[in-house]
Amino acid sequence: LDSGTFQQVRRLLNGLQPVEIAHLLESSPPPSRRILWTLIDPELEGEVLQELSEDVQLQFLRGMNTEKVVEITEGMDTDDLADVLQRLPDAVIQEVLAAMDAQDRQRVEQVLSYDEDTAGGLMDTDTITVRPRVTLDVVFRYLRRHDELPGSTDSLIVVSGKGEYVGLLPLSKLLTSSPNSTVREVMSTGLEAIPATMRDTEVASLFERHDWISAPVVDDDGIVVGRITIDDVVDVIREDADHSLMSMAGLDEEEDTFAPIHRTAPRRAIWLGINLLTAILASSVINIFQGTIDKVVALAVLMPIVASMGGVAGSQTLTVVIRGMALGQIGRSNINWLVSREFFVGLINGMLWALTMALVAGWWFEDPIISFIIAAAMVINLLTASVAGALLPITLRSIKIDPALAGSVALTTITDVVGFFAFLGLATYFYA
Amino acid sequence: LDSGTFQQVRRLLNGLQPVEIAHLLESSPPPSRRILWTLIDPELEGEVLQELSEDVQLQFLRGMNTEKVVEITEGMDTDDLADVLQRLPDAVIQEVLAAMDAQDRQRVEQVLSYDEDTAGGLMDTDTITVRPRVTLDVVFRYLRRHDELPGSTDSLIVVSGKGEYVGLLPLSKLLTSSPNSTVREVMSTGLEAIPATMRDTEVASLFERHDWISAPVVDDDGIVVGRITIDDVVDVIREDADHSLMSMAGLDEEEDTFAPIHRTAPRRAIWLGINLLTAILASSVINIFQGTIDKVVALAVLMPIVASMGGVAGSQTLTVVIRGMALGQIGRSNINWLVSREFFVGLINGMLWALTMALVAGWWFEDPIISFIIAAAMVINLLTASVAGALLPITLRSIKIDPALAGSVALTTITDVVGFFAFLGLATYFYA
Repeated sequence: LDSGTFQQVRRLLNGLQPVEIAHLLESSPPPSRRILWTLIDPELEGEVLQELSEDVQLQFLRGMNTEKVVEITEGMDTDDLADVLQRLPDAVIQEVLAAMDAQDRQRVEQVLSYDEDTAGGLMDTDTITVRPRVTLDVVFRYLRRHDELPGSTDSLIVVSGKGEYVGLLPLSKLLTSSPNSTVREVMSTGLEAIPATMRDTEVASLFERHDWISAPVVDDDGIVVGRITIDDVVDVIREDADHSLMSMAGLDEEEDTFAPIHRTAPRRAIWLGINLLTAILASSVINIFQGTIDKVVALAVLMPIVASMGGVAGSQTLTVVIRGMALGQIGRSNINWLVSREFFVGLINGMLWALTMALVAGWWFEDPIISFIIAAAMVINLLTASVAGALLPITLRSIKIDPALAGSVALTTITDVVGFFAFLGLATYFYA
Repeated sequence: LDSGTFQQVRRLLNGLQPVEIAHLLESSPPPSRRILWTLIDPELEGEVLQELSEDVQLQFLRGMNTEKVVEITEGMDTDDLADVLQRLPDAVIQEVLAAMDAQDRQRVEQVLSYDEDTAGGLMDTDTITVRPRVTLDVVFRYLRRHDELPGSTDSLIVVSGKGEYVGLLPLSKLLTSSPNSTVREVMSTGLEAIPATMRDTEVASLFERHDWISAPVVDDDGIVVGRITIDDVVDVIREDADHSLMSMAGLDEEEDTFAPIHRTAPRRAIWLGINLLTAILASSVINIFQGTIDKVVALAVLMPIVASMGGVAGSQTLTVVIRGMALGQIGRSNINWLVSREFFVGLINGMLWALTMALVAGWWFEDPIISFIIAAAMVINLLTASVAGALLPITLRSIKIDPALAGSVALTTITDVVGFFAFLGLATYFYA
């Protein structure tokens, strides 16, 4: 690229919105990514950075010295800034905080004091609060003193003299009520404030169920410390939904699509290693039955079918249950019904495809015994797979292991072991 | 349950918000679900119905006669009502429309005229519009004539005399500007209106990127026909994210977790049948090499390991690529980089675990040839799996097949066939 083209790309790039530049960076392989970053206007860098996903953000932050980090984080929202800071070494955090004015520093420190995955870590501290006893007319005059309201402000927070949460004054109420009414008369008190320690996924499900746009956050004493807005909640919902998908393949939901080889390879190697162990375990089951296979080599041809069908049936059940758990639908009261439904679905589909496979095997090897053996093994394995697929996630969750991550490995191990054992075990009985 | 307990449950149930009742229904197996439904206050039924997921909604609607449907849909939002109607037979739709007043009917018919998966199908028709030449003071007086504003109203839509979209007047601008300014002076014109025919996933990604709360929808002539609000977009985002997870197991993202056996079994049977075909295909590869297995039975013990490791490596790549495609990150310009990264990651991890497996096999069977064969086959299969995992989704998308649905089946077929062929083929060469 000659320098003229560079100038053109630079102009094009900086004509985009920060969120679009961030999307472009995330869609670029590392080499182009580094070049693109150097072309971004320095005053846009902070805004672009806060739109990037965690993994990509970290890659750029690692390459910066402390002064650069201080410079780039100026003017970020407190919640985004806190997110960025949490990924940096302590020494850098201290320098960034030292460079801020006292009020901002206090706000960021407050957000930093909460875990990233809680309401406190998600909240923004720029709230507009009003007292219950003032009239709406006073509120109107107060608002006009602002140049603009904080983003996603759909209601003002009504607080007592001590700063305790009292209620909400939706802008739509403010605009449709008489200016002579007091805040107390028109405010809504139905919505309870969110405790700063609530898990972010729980916050997301509250927003999702109640169609909120923003909600106040309070500390242990009921004092308003910030507010959460729907745009941050949407990110939580997206990550939460991606979590099951990515975890089931042993991946992280924050994984950068274009992570370089030296970051991708080691992450995946661990997962492959775990799977190698379970595959060896399944093989050692086959090993027990070497003698039988030696007698009837057709068994070696057919045995992967039994394992594979169990794996597929089990993963269907597992996926439904993991999604249901993520949506908060599955608990102790309904798990029995679910397991029994899966049992019968496994039984019906097991018998259907076992019969089909028996006919295929009979035609293929002209041996009614092998037809019977593969049919019986398939029914056993599909039944086991369906019940295990339903019970595993619940069991894993109760011992605090992420079902989305460990469920698929554990299930494949079960369906392989049971599949090979049932098929080759039956064969040994009939052919021995 | 005696009738006293019933009364208690009924009181408890109807004390909940409609959205919570809906969640309770979705978390209940069909028998309790039917009982719970009969306990809901008739005036709450409509609100509860519109909060239910598609699949569950349909189950209740199927059991109602037309009068009941007419009664229950009174007072629903136009977009939710249109969603419900789209699932009913034409005759019922006509009767429900006939029972509505002319204005409401026209609104619903307008939404119904668009596909459910487009901006038009997602939009609400209750908008508040203002003219550019009036002063904010007039807007204030106009708003005070309303009892309340439509839900999620964060801005008023500025339209010309013909109803064409001109710009947006954010409530926060309205509240912070001088009442003597005109709408034209303070309105934002930066946001382009959404065409009614835009796909809902595209709408969702616009909302997500720009942190919108609501956005105007226009028809082909630029006339404002409605607006889309973030709460409906959140549902699209959730479904969109669930789509990849559920499709990879051959399931539908709208699938009811507690669907009864007679609905679950046939849906899953089809997927199992497709997988049986691919498993038989893989077995027929093994069948070619019966003679070799007969000679060296250890091959039968080890061959599932080669196939399994390929499957795991491939599904990791597939998941990353499918997620990247759903996020709109992957296109023609970066696919080459991605395929080559996957190639090298597959090569590195293939060699790592092939070496490990060679040592295990050498110790297990005390045969250096089998060690070499399994290592070579694993490298070949992991390389194939990684490259196929990256190329498959792109190829499937280009021929208009959903990669999330077809990708995992196609990939398993490839990794099984290549795995067995490489391992047994090499063995035949060395042992024959």
